[in-house]
Amino acid sequence: MGDLRSTRPITSPDIPVSAELMCRAIALALENVRCARGGPFAALVAKDGKVIAEGANSVTATNDPTAHAEIVAIRAACKALGNFQLTGCDLYTTCEPCPMCLGAIYWARPARVFYAGAAADAADAGFDDAFIYEELQRPPESRRIPMIQLMREESLAVFAAWKQQANKTKY
Amino acid sequence: MGDLRSTRPITSPDIPVSAELMCRAIALALENVRCARGGPFAALVAKDGKVIAEGANSVTATNDPTAHAEIVAIRAACKALGNFQLTGCDLYTTCEPCPMCLGAIYWARPARVFYAGAAADAADAGFDDAFIYEELQRPPESRRIPMIQLMREESLAVFAAWKQQANKTKY
Repeated sequence: MGDLRSTRPITSPDIPVSAELMCRAIALALENVRCARGGPFAALVAKDGKVIAEGANSVTATNDPTAHAEIVAIRAACKALGNFQLTGCDLYTTCEPCPMCLGAIYWARPARVFYAGAAADAADAGFDDAFIYEELQRPPESRRIPMIQLMREESLAVFAAWKQQANKTKY
Repeated sequence: MGDLRSTRPITSPDIPVSAELMCRAIALALENVRCARGGPFAALVAKDGKVIAEGANSVTATNDPTAHAEIVAIRAACKALGNFQLTGCDLYTTCEPCPMCLGAIYWARPARVFYAGAAADAADAGFDDAFIYEELQRPPESRRIPMIQLMREESLAVFAAWKQQANKTKY
């Protein structure tokens, strides 16, 4: 995670943006709607211009509120690469990512993100995540879902154990 | 998703906060570090005071950058309930959630979130997510990971298909 905060520039792959890959993601999203599998969103991860993994929204089909297209594609791509980082990869997504997916993108650290629809287009179709951005900026105790701190002192033992742990895999 | 933006208050369960449940989450996080399975974080979801599902950070063990404790616990709890919403549930997490997990919390919609460690405590142990909050507030084109829009017009067909679809499951 130190990696993510470093000033080391994220290396952009020397590969032109691909309209073909975005078309493929859009086709996948259309198929997802027509087959009634899930929401109108799809994404794919490409490396060196080749698709590593695809994902379509499957929140309702899998009873998984985190199964947004980007998360599904990122998880599948990391599995395919055997790595928890998408170094040098491009993410193509049919819509501007929501805050959850943006967070996932920063943890996965692809080189570039290409998106088609804007957040406003998604909002117009009933998918409005603006309220989450608003909530994120509020202090925990003032949020719509109450967030209450307790037992901080007791929890510090976990971080102390982590600091003392030898041979840990940082991320 | 209209549900999430509605003015309908989120019903808080009439159940007192449980130090026992937070202790259990802290013990799980400690175990996760000591067994070298993953980062120093754990979470659990409870309903009516009983644990439905637990999760510990397993980013490195499973090569999944989204496998933060809260996401693992939310996915497992939704699977256990057979629902993509955690209505009436409490989430206990050993640390203040990162932006990705906060987003997931808003999509899963538990009634309350209890957390122990503060974001600053995590940062002190090498897990600093402040830069993600900063990135989220920047326009897409100015972010550290370049985010570039293309083919918006073509993508609108997906939302049009969604709007026309009968019998869709909204979320």
